[in-house]
Amino acid sequence: MDKTCVPKATLGRIPRYLRFLKGLVDEKGNKYISATTIAKALNLGEVQVRKDLNAVSGMGKPRVGYLRSALISDIESFLGYNDLTPAVLVGAGKLGKALLDYDDFHNYGVEIVAAFDNNLEVIRYGTRREILPISEFERICLEKKVQIGIITVGESVAQEIADKMVKVGIKAIWNFAPTKISLPESVIVKHESLALSLAYLRNQLIN
Amino acid sequence: MDKTCVPKATLGRIPRYLRFLKGLVDEKGNKYISATTIAKALNLGEVQVRKDLNAVSGMGKPRVGYLRSALISDIESFLGYNDLTPAVLVGAGKLGKALLDYDDFHNYGVEIVAAFDNNLEVIRYGTRREILPISEFERICLEKKVQIGIITVGESVAQEIADKMVKVGIKAIWNFAPTKISLPESVIVKHESLALSLAYLRNQLIN
Repeated sequence: MDKTCVPKATLGRIPRYLRFLKGLVDEKGNKYISATTIAKALNLGEVQVRKDLNAVSGMGKPRVGYLRSALISDIESFLGYNDLTPAVLVGAGKLGKALLDYDDFHNYGVEIVAAFDNNLEVIRYGTRREILPISEFERICLEKKVQIGIITVGESVAQEIADKMVKVGIKAIWNFAPTKISLPESVIVKHESLALSLAYLRNQLIN
Repeated sequence: MDKTCVPKATLGRIPRYLRFLKGLVDEKGNKYISATTIAKALNLGEVQVRKDLNAVSGMGKPRVGYLRSALISDIESFLGYNDLTPAVLVGAGKLGKALLDYDDFHNYGVEIVAAFDNNLEVIRYGTRREILPISEFERICLEKKVQIGIITVGESVAQEIADKMVKVGIKAIWNFAPTKISLPESVIVKHESLALSLAYLRNQLIN
């Protein structure tokens, strides 16, 4: 299995294959499924389906296709179902909470193990996804070996939080604060600007 | 002024220029400001600054630079401050509400004029940003000449909402539902998958 970085578009289709394969009721009791069948069911090109599945599971057998159970387990392993990458979120305002309660991350191999805030009014213990005081940040991150940090604080403290994250060994940061942050080169960072996405859409619309 | 589609990266810098120019206190009372000064203050390359400002305001005067007041007003007009593009949002769950209360959209020329939901428990009248029953959708969109639709409903109803949007003349759709939607070619659509962004980050991390 070739597990190098797959393009974002491919990655986006993978959970669809999984959902389809898992939901499949095959009346004839076939253990195999062909790329053709998958492509038709999901309204995708056959070449694309073959390419995608090849990236996560290898080639199907000529004429019969893929062993369904093996394909499911390869996709699950590719998506990290057996090995969720632990993430934390700092800043439990509206956006932070929306992300925290967003269930879809699981389907892509990431689990937000805790959120942190310095506003004691938003702290919630004992729920499925706890929001803890920022004073607990270091302990939890080290304990859970957290690898991904999500920043949903305001512009003014984003750098401080990013530094904290780097200090506990976080290797990838998803930054929603509307500011650039400086990080060691070894840390992967993705800046997410929702406002900018919308602005870009507007810009296409009015021009 | 060249108002054709600017690249997303440029668009992202424009509000920073505006914030800087507005916050500027020039003790010498200079009416002009040079690209060099702006570049230094914002830690950007000078060539980039010139290119960006040229896209929204035209060239500065040789040796003196840009008339600050004119530059501010050109940027504001470029960002649509005087002519906010009206948008609506359908689906006032956690993500929908987070977007609804997100103030930064204003800074990029978009105003969410109302949100809609079919869950009567989330309806809120009379607040700054109302959440209305979906039965009001058509009337409000036509009345406010809404041009942008934001979809934050679940997968199963996304297409239905998109069709409603097209019917009232919405020309650009920002879709957060994790599903493809079919639209007439004349409608601009941007699919936003937060889970996918995070998955992509994870994928870079583990490979």
